[in-house]
Amino acid sequence: MKIEYQPIGFVHSPHQTTSGTPIQPSRAAGIEGTVEVAEEYAEALVDLDGFSHIILICHLHKAAKFKLKVVPYLDTELRGLFATRAPSRPNPIGLSVVRLLGVDGLVLKIEGVDLLDGTPVLDIKPYVREFDEQTEIRCGWLDEVSGRETTADDRFER
Amino acid sequence: MKIEYQPIGFVHSPHQTTSGTPIQPSRAAGIEGTVEVAEEYAEALVDLDGFSHIILICHLHKAAKFKLKVVPYLDTELRGLFATRAPSRPNPIGLSVVRLLGVDGLVLKIEGVDLLDGTPVLDIKPYVREFDEQTEIRCGWLDEVSGRETTADDRFER
Repeated sequence: MKIEYQPIGFVHSPHQTTSGTPIQPSRAAGIEGTVEVAEEYAEALVDLDGFSHIILICHLHKAAKFKLKVVPYLDTELRGLFATRAPSRPNPIGLSVVRLLGVDGLVLKIEGVDLLDGTPVLDIKPYVREFDEQTEIRCGWLDEVSGRETTADDRFER
Repeated sequence: MKIEYQPIGFVHSPHQTTSGTPIQPSRAAGIEGTVEVAEEYAEALVDLDGFSHIILICHLHKAAKFKLKVVPYLDTELRGLFATRAPSRPNPIGLSVVRLLGVDGLVLKIEGVDLLDGTPVLDIKPYVREFDEQTEIRCGWLDEVSGRETTADDRFER
């Protein structure tokens, strides 16, 4: 079973290489960029400017082939891939919740950019408190570690 | 530019038809189901059981062709598609944050199931407080409406 998608737009960001790119939007405070949406979707952007945050679902086009266990940026031990947010995955889909600073025609100005310049965007969703916030959260191995790393290196390109 | 993915597993859920299926996990409290992950990814599931919530990224295989503006379940007005969580999208990717009740081999037992039985799963990520929770959230049109609907009808199959 094959599933085929096409980009609805592309990210423009200051990050040209994986090494040094923030590992998550929460570690990319103040870093701005844009999403340029394809013209055919202009009408689908109406009402988006009312939301403070959007969810970008992207194809992580520079990620290397996945491994089943990886040492994530925030730990020093091998962890099961699906228990991490590592970019190299069977389907290399990235999920970034970014702040929406404004909408100017087909261009979304965003803050908290953890994506490489040129990353294809597959979907844009509004971040909704009721749907996306959880209570009573446990975060497994991540609750045990201090979370040192803020930017990426090349471990997921090897 | 074509992007090709393959399912890493499938959802088993009590929902056989879109009509009557909860519109989001937050409106599916107590509804349990499973994700059956393909055997080749067994090792990637290690450590996942430490997390209380997981993010399922799915291919919404029953969604009809998208329209640029839709009347979402929680409103009575036409809204730009990307300002809604409607399932019919250019790339029909669903994002469901569900409670992880347990992991038994290749089977993840989950609660808060808003997905149809047989939905292909593209990715599984741990829900992480630091990455997935936001402060100072504004939710545009959704802040203005009462949010009546809890289950879906067939509007996105037409």
